[in-house]
Amino acid sequence: MSEDMKQAALDYHANPRAGKISVEISKPTETSRDLSLAYSPGVAEPVREIAKDPENAYKYTAKGNLVAVISDGSAILGLGNLGPLASKPVMEGKGVLFKRFAGIDVFDIEVNSESPQAFIDTVRRIADTFGGINLEDIKAPECFEIERILIEQCDIPVFHDDQHGTAIVTAAGMLNALELQGKKIEEAKIVCLGAGAAAVACMKLLISCGAASENIYMLDRKGVIHSGRDDLNQYKAMFANDTDKRTLADACDGADVFVGLSGPNLLPAEALKSMAPNPVVFACSNPDPEIAVELALATRDDLIMATGRSDYPNQVNNVLGFPFIFRGALDVRAKVINEEMKVAAVHAIRELAKEPVPQAVIDAYGGEALEYGKDNIIPKPLDTRLLTVVSAAVAKAAVDSGVANLPYPAHYPLNSIDDII
Amino acid sequence: MSEDMKQAALDYHANPRAGKISVEISKPTETSRDLSLAYSPGVAEPVREIAKDPENAYKYTAKGNLVAVISDGSAILGLGNLGPLASKPVMEGKGVLFKRFAGIDVFDIEVNSESPQAFIDTVRRIADTFGGINLEDIKAPECFEIERILIEQCDIPVFHDDQHGTAIVTAAGMLNALELQGKKIEEAKIVCLGAGAAAVACMKLLISCGAASENIYMLDRKGVIHSGRDDLNQYKAMFANDTDKRTLADACDGADVFVGLSGPNLLPAEALKSMAPNPVVFACSNPDPEIAVELALATRDDLIMATGRSDYPNQVNNVLGFPFIFRGALDVRAKVINEEMKVAAVHAIRELAKEPVPQAVIDAYGGEALEYGKDNIIPKPLDTRLLTVVSAAVAKAAVDSGVANLPYPAHYPLNSIDDII
Repeated sequence: MSEDMKQAALDYHANPRAGKISVEISKPTETSRDLSLAYSPGVAEPVREIAKDPENAYKYTAKGNLVAVISDGSAILGLGNLGPLASKPVMEGKGVLFKRFAGIDVFDIEVNSESPQAFIDTVRRIADTFGGINLEDIKAPECFEIERILIEQCDIPVFHDDQHGTAIVTAAGMLNALELQGKKIEEAKIVCLGAGAAAVACMKLLISCGAASENIYMLDRKGVIHSGRDDLNQYKAMFANDTDKRTLADACDGADVFVGLSGPNLLPAEALKSMAPNPVVFACSNPDPEIAVELALATRDDLIMATGRSDYPNQVNNVLGFPFIFRGALDVRAKVINEEMKVAAVHAIRELAKEPVPQAVIDAYGGEALEYGKDNIIPKPLDTRLLTVVSAAVAKAAVDSGVANLPYPAHYPLNSIDDII
Repeated sequence: MSEDMKQAALDYHANPRAGKISVEISKPTETSRDLSLAYSPGVAEPVREIAKDPENAYKYTAKGNLVAVISDGSAILGLGNLGPLASKPVMEGKGVLFKRFAGIDVFDIEVNSESPQAFIDTVRRIADTFGGINLEDIKAPECFEIERILIEQCDIPVFHDDQHGTAIVTAAGMLNALELQGKKIEEAKIVCLGAGAAAVACMKLLISCGAASENIYMLDRKGVIHSGRDDLNQYKAMFANDTDKRTLADACDGADVFVGLSGPNLLPAEALKSMAPNPVVFACSNPDPEIAVELALATRDDLIMATGRSDYPNQVNNVLGFPFIFRGALDVRAKVINEEMKVAAVHAIRELAKEPVPQAVIDAYGGEALEYGKDNIIPKPLDTRLLTVVSAAVAKAAVDSGVANLPYPAHYPLNSIDDII
């Protein structure tokens, strides 16, 4: 990022007032009577109704449209473990995206916890406050256990976006890229560089979408994860193949797909050159991908490439997923966000990419050509149709898979953010 | 409350959308560039700045104007222990009052904790999120220890409003009432019916304002708290007098002041009749005071009476205090809300009651006469001057007592909510 942009980012956060959010009153409070309804003595009535039936919390409080974005700051963006306080701008920013794209109210909560158990206890105890929980920027492998236990202990959706949001958007783009390259996911040989939260979730979801686990080669800092290794945690062990491949070069040789969820410039041009014809390269390290776009395109011209960057084609951006996944989940009051809902989101996003793009979206990107193809395998973040199709698909999948407390909403599909109740 | 008002309160909370608050975006988010400043990659800059110096959280996030209103729902209004979820409308309502009167953003947090220690751990771990913590509706005696430990462990103000907010507004009204009745607080014999959180805090603050502890008779369910009792927790024990008085009738005989923080209709007319000439009666049980206003006035005509009700003169309402106390504390970034700041708030509120009331305030109360006197010992909640005088007094006291991280604000005193930075 340029120095100008860095200063602009600081100014944006500081002026005219600190931060990016405010909490506003949504009901009248002008008169004494208004105040006596909002607070004592009138407020006693909804209290009594909720004490009678907890479901009434959704009727009389903001809970049903309120998501907690919660972090311990142990894995902030690409910056690492800087602690809870330093993560606050990111969590506030996540809340901004939830609101901007799906009308969801967010409390960002930064947790200073001495252990994963302390983090779990803290989140579980405050969970009544919210309609859903988005875990964010928590390091692996702790994040897996934290999410698993919180899903068990909470009666509202708990979703670690760095895992599943990334996986959903990656899978959507991947299915389209493979189709455009004339490859079948069932047969594709896939290299995954990185074995953290996002990598594990991406590969699991690709398997849910048809990939064969024996075709996946995952690499951590020590090389290919294979069945001869005795240093694997249970999450990496799921991807241990019985293989002779040991290095990134071994794994890439003849591979159809490279997914990078690791760090900058870790994929050498030679490795890319050795991949099968018409490869797919998702180099998601941000801001510097596993291979620079220019180098990749200079190395071979038969590839489809995606990155995490907004200034190149095919940006893999979680914002295509999480706002709408939660929107759909909240609107049918889903107890969890299950695999069916995630897969439904994948297909909704990938199918949308194939539709003609409305002029308003094209205009939002300065008239850029956005027709479906190698440079447009996934929708753009400012495509307002995402709200319509992803929320609807997720809500329907929740109802169909039996995890919804409400029927498919009568006001669905949403045409715009103004349709949100 | 009438059935009509009860239904109006439910409708108010439910329609047109559930609850009373929303979270809104305070910065531009229209373009891709806006979003790249609000979130990745721009957001990395404020993250780095905060990692370098935690103070920068006040510059780049909403922390500095953000208060948590936190409850376990163990003592909701007059309704008792109905649990965290049922307390949510009250906590949201408290947030509404913070915003409406002092422009403070509030996250309401309902904590489902298995023990006071679990509650403390939870609040301490999420404290980084906020600029201040308002504890609410937590039962005694647990609330005392909870507050004491959290004040020790957090570097932001922690304030249990049921204790100190009530105490501050009560003390303000009491000092004026005593003055109007020609009594000195140093000599006043005071009966306090109730020994819970509010009662203990009120009596402690009256002592800070000059009352003599040997003149205070506190009563719990078993009668007068005296030095011969062996069933007192440490908080009640502070008020154990060496006295022969045992009953409410004993205590009231010849007393100058009755403070009721207990339950409806517990003060018999005979006890009121036996009080000293020109007594002061604060019957704060709400909505039904310790003695009905009509009965009290029929019993004697030389008293000054205050209640918690808005439909009688002299409403003791915490909203005269907490929004402005936090405003002042936040604006000088006080580390705590100490005794000096509380006493400063008492005097600011009591002095304001003596000033001529602006026409706009009179109009807000339908043209009611609001001149200082027996029926107007404290300001009205819609008196906008509270923001000016209480915030300034609290901020000044914080600076003078050495607990402020910033100097007295250049933009103080605030003329209106629009002056808030």
